[in-house]
Amino acid sequence: MAELHVTSATNPRLKAVTALRRRRVREQEGRTVVDGHAELALAVEAGVVPDLLLHCPELMTDPEAQGGLVERVRALGTTTIRCGRSAFEKVAYREGPDGLLAVVPVAGVPLADLTLPDDPLVVVVEGLEKPGNLGSVLRTADAAGVAAVVAADPTTDWGNPNVVRASKGTVFSVPVASAPLAQVRDWLHAGGFRVVATTPDTDLTHTAADYRGAVAIAVGTESTGLSEAALGAADVRVRIPMAGRVNSLNAGVSAAVVVYEAVRQRTS
Amino acid sequence: MAELHVTSATNPRLKAVTALRRRRVREQEGRTVVDGHAELALAVEAGVVPDLLLHCPELMTDPEAQGGLVERVRALGTTTIRCGRSAFEKVAYREGPDGLLAVVPVAGVPLADLTLPDDPLVVVVEGLEKPGNLGSVLRTADAAGVAAVVAADPTTDWGNPNVVRASKGTVFSVPVASAPLAQVRDWLHAGGFRVVATTPDTDLTHTAADYRGAVAIAVGTESTGLSEAALGAADVRVRIPMAGRVNSLNAGVSAAVVVYEAVRQRTS
Repeated sequence: MAELHVTSATNPRLKAVTALRRRRVREQEGRTVVDGHAELALAVEAGVVPDLLLHCPELMTDPEAQGGLVERVRALGTTTIRCGRSAFEKVAYREGPDGLLAVVPVAGVPLADLTLPDDPLVVVVEGLEKPGNLGSVLRTADAAGVAAVVAADPTTDWGNPNVVRASKGTVFSVPVASAPLAQVRDWLHAGGFRVVATTPDTDLTHTAADYRGAVAIAVGTESTGLSEAALGAADVRVRIPMAGRVNSLNAGVSAAVVVYEAVRQRTS
Repeated sequence: MAELHVTSATNPRLKAVTALRRRRVREQEGRTVVDGHAELALAVEAGVVPDLLLHCPELMTDPEAQGGLVERVRALGTTTIRCGRSAFEKVAYREGPDGLLAVVPVAGVPLADLTLPDDPLVVVVEGLEKPGNLGSVLRTADAAGVAAVVAADPTTDWGNPNVVRASKGTVFSVPVASAPLAQVRDWLHAGGFRVVATTPDTDLTHTAADYRGAVAIAVGTESTGLSEAALGAADVRVRIPMAGRVNSLNAGVSAAVVVYEAVRQRTS
């Protein structure tokens, strides 16, 4: 079958892609958009099978590698559409698109379906609302080998294209789930997790806690931190020592500092 | 003297503020803009005396605290101008301005003028070009009590309003300097620093290095890392262990993980 070639963003297939910018549509369809070569390559490597791939050879910065990825995705049975430059730029989510954009199933499974190793290290994020911070936590989780990232009462969805982008595609390689806080608490309890909550309101330095065994590191929002309910579910509260005048590190940075202290303890 | 009240962004005083968005103008004038209450409060607390303060009561989100800061700045001898909403919004650098914006001297001193404690911990950033990452490193440096942040061959300036903003004002509380790499190398050598370079190209885990004494942690860009010249100046190379599929953590995150490992060793 010859590949479809589209030059207008008003084409119904392309309009359906653009509609995925809206959270409601993403949740109805269970689909989102991966915009960019690096992100898509990581998603495909993690086992994601796109429903649709748009490509625009004129915009590609590395035509050989990117063309190879188009072939690889096509071999998965995915429909591909070649787009004209102006049509592609209208559909692309990011500024300066690189000529690859795919529609994929949103990441995330029900909490009960997460498959975990023995003595897992997981990260629980509560209400983390900035896609950039959530993306940063996912990159850290991927790098540190965290078994899962669980969002409690999330104010954004795992399919948010800004999360996908800020995560560099790791939202597809790290197991993720989201659920109401009460349900997350029950799940942590049932799993025998020791919950380490990060908060300024404690004297215990984060390096003084024990992170071996089944451990959940809980982080809250940059502005308000963890809720009382979340802190109440914690077995231990830790703080990152702050010498300076600013109360809080960037939320993604705080999470990484504590996660890598856990990695240090668990591998030494 | 009655306070000036300006309702048009074409007012020459306001146009001079807008001109500071251009790096060339900032470097000519040695001035930049601090936009926002939290950032300005931190700068003033760190000893910065603004040259000019624009305020717009209609935009203030916390009129009592912000009005107090206006009074405090005025008591420093700073000229204040009350702006109409539309004029202020045009001059403001950020979206959703909160009614406070000041012109201040740019941060940074010549390398030779940095005053350091005994056995200082400093961070050297090479070519870190994204204001968000540079801001993140400054917040970490402030929180961790790093003695100075030195930019080698910087591609952005300390006065970049996006750096000021991303740093939450810590660019004014942390001693900063910038210089060509060769000069930074000489300075590190003369200061007796042990230089710990972060790079993926080593087998030594970051937690296996010794960070006590006079130590400089060197970090490069997210895309290309440290240059060969910078790596050549290092006494030890360390890597953050990466379990996942993505090669690099966010540059600001990597710096924080290594800096806080240094803090752990230096305080335990």
